[in-house]
Amino acid sequence: MTQTIHIERTTTPKPKPAANELGFGKYFTDHMFILDYEEGKGWHNARIVPYQPISLDPAAKVFHYGQTIFEGLKAYRTENGKISLFRPDMNMKRLNRSNDRMSIPPVDEALGLEALRQLVLIDQDWIPDAPETSLYVRPFVIATEPALGVSPSQQYKFMIILSPVGTYYAEGIKPVSIYVESEYARSVVGGVGHVKTAGNYAAGLKAQEGASALGYSQVLWLDGVHRKYVEEVGSMNVFFRIGDKVITPALTGGLLPGITRDSVIHLLKHWGVEVEERLISIDELVQAQKDGSLKEMFGTGTAAVISPVGSLHWKGEKLMIGDGSTGELSARVYDTITGIQNGRIEDPFSWRVVVE
Amino acid sequence: MTQTIHIERTTTPKPKPAANELGFGKYFTDHMFILDYEEGKGWHNARIVPYQPISLDPAAKVFHYGQTIFEGLKAYRTENGKISLFRPDMNMKRLNRSNDRMSIPPVDEALGLEALRQLVLIDQDWIPDAPETSLYVRPFVIATEPALGVSPSQQYKFMIILSPVGTYYAEGIKPVSIYVESEYARSVVGGVGHVKTAGNYAAGLKAQEGASALGYSQVLWLDGVHRKYVEEVGSMNVFFRIGDKVITPALTGGLLPGITRDSVIHLLKHWGVEVEERLISIDELVQAQKDGSLKEMFGTGTAAVISPVGSLHWKGEKLMIGDGSTGELSARVYDTITGIQNGRIEDPFSWRVVVE
Repeated sequence: MTQTIHIERTTTPKPKPAANELGFGKYFTDHMFILDYEEGKGWHNARIVPYQPISLDPAAKVFHYGQTIFEGLKAYRTENGKISLFRPDMNMKRLNRSNDRMSIPPVDEALGLEALRQLVLIDQDWIPDAPETSLYVRPFVIATEPALGVSPSQQYKFMIILSPVGTYYAEGIKPVSIYVESEYARSVVGGVGHVKTAGNYAAGLKAQEGASALGYSQVLWLDGVHRKYVEEVGSMNVFFRIGDKVITPALTGGLLPGITRDSVIHLLKHWGVEVEERLISIDELVQAQKDGSLKEMFGTGTAAVISPVGSLHWKGEKLMIGDGSTGELSARVYDTITGIQNGRIEDPFSWRVVVE
Repeated sequence: MTQTIHIERTTTPKPKPAANELGFGKYFTDHMFILDYEEGKGWHNARIVPYQPISLDPAAKVFHYGQTIFEGLKAYRTENGKISLFRPDMNMKRLNRSNDRMSIPPVDEALGLEALRQLVLIDQDWIPDAPETSLYVRPFVIATEPALGVSPSQQYKFMIILSPVGTYYAEGIKPVSIYVESEYARSVVGGVGHVKTAGNYAAGLKAQEGASALGYSQVLWLDGVHRKYVEEVGSMNVFFRIGDKVITPALTGGLLPGITRDSVIHLLKHWGVEVEERLISIDELVQAQKDGSLKEMFGTGTAAVISPVGSLHWKGEKLMIGDGSTGELSARVYDTITGIQNGRIEDPFSWRVVVE
């Protein structure tokens, strides 16, 4: 890392929201990180400044052609009063894989991690310490060149903003009901479903709205080609406990390589649970539900960590998962991962990174 | 239309670029249109103001989840000194279809058209009058709510900006060489390939860069499911003259219903040319090229109008289209559509809308 991060502190710190009002991504801290890119000059002008609006030309490419990527991770106030991050190096690596797919120049990962560290330290008073709360960290890159030709931007901004958050779902770790989506598709192999780019999320809103209108929390996405293989649930990866095995969709190119997904696989294997990463069809799932072997199902992601699924709606039928309540393995995974994250329990994998 | 458009004129008009320096989407005029949306309040505060940067919270949803759509059309200085638009009602209708798919509230089409009319009139001195030049009009909507939950924004901006443009492709109406893309996919049925949303364009950059590196102008996109049926070329619709018929991919949901596409179909039928809108596979194309019946191929879009294709690169082979030069029908379509647009010839379809 060759760049120094210039720091300008706010002179007007904001009041902090109460823990029970946090929600997800509604409040932002006092500072933010910015790094500029210009073709020929590279990434430059690393700075932490007071959180404030950014000013962009209305022709900035992000508005027109969606050249943008993001990441998400959390900072925790651990029980001994320290601050920890969860596998932040994985986020920076994925950020650059996303950049590559979206024709955005790579960001220096060491600089990104250092920016993250300094920003979290500066705004450490914003890390909530009530149970289930944390400081959500959102690094993102946007294309800022004011030009309407369809080509990669010659200017970008890499930014990090912070938001104190409660649980992602208002209902907390309670099983949700899921609508299996058969009309809309989230992604296709050869597309961008495997990277964290803005367009993937906007494309999923319509299906989500439809599911909500029918009383479901999220949709279960099937692959775009065969409309048969399960890919993600909402904007999370998904796991199924069938008999004594746990199955999760293989990273075929249509789904995001989640960091929580990776952590859950490691954890389950560490416990001696057999995990299969492979194609899993909706038909196989329905069959497993009918014969009683589908014991548990849960989504995984940074925001919710683990989101148990209580029932699936498929072809007019409501399929209960297990007895509809949070499964024993789901609960154990949730407790262990959140326990490692907030320092409540030992971290055998060295996933926790203390910020100091 | 119930809203009045408030007008604030610039006091510092910018110098205008020379006709030979225009390029595409590099220069912007003195004014822009803005309309705000807020949940519960609807679209409000219609205004034309000096062209200027916009200020957005770094958490604005457009940066993170890509909830945005756009349109593109052109204003022309006709030979009798009037200003004309080309089928602007089609753009406003498609804008609302795009809005619907992207969970964005609909815009009053009459207000949008009136905004467009007033803005073009205010900046009419920016409409270039050299051959092949025009004033490109870019309406777009961006999600501005500062919140990181993945859900439709509660705040938006609908804006219109204007850019005096030359021809889209530096090479002008000269046949381009095209790389048939087999690794990347542009869209899939059930996705968003049929609407003008930002993410579609960012997703295509990587393939475009690959094709450019190999010396090709654009890629020919095959469908995301079978990787077999031709969909678009670059960001244009595509037409093939095979024998005495003209074939263009049917609107299956994976490609954009282009306004130039629609106009070309109408025009060809008006001339008595048989036009088929149907699935057309790359194999059929290659076969037609081999047996000599593939006479012409061209892309259509607002920016380039008609872009003839001279050759296709497929599986290591270079397939010449006709004799590699601009085909007779392609040239006639180009001359007629641009002639109608700039008022050089009669407009039997009432496509030209005079702005006054």
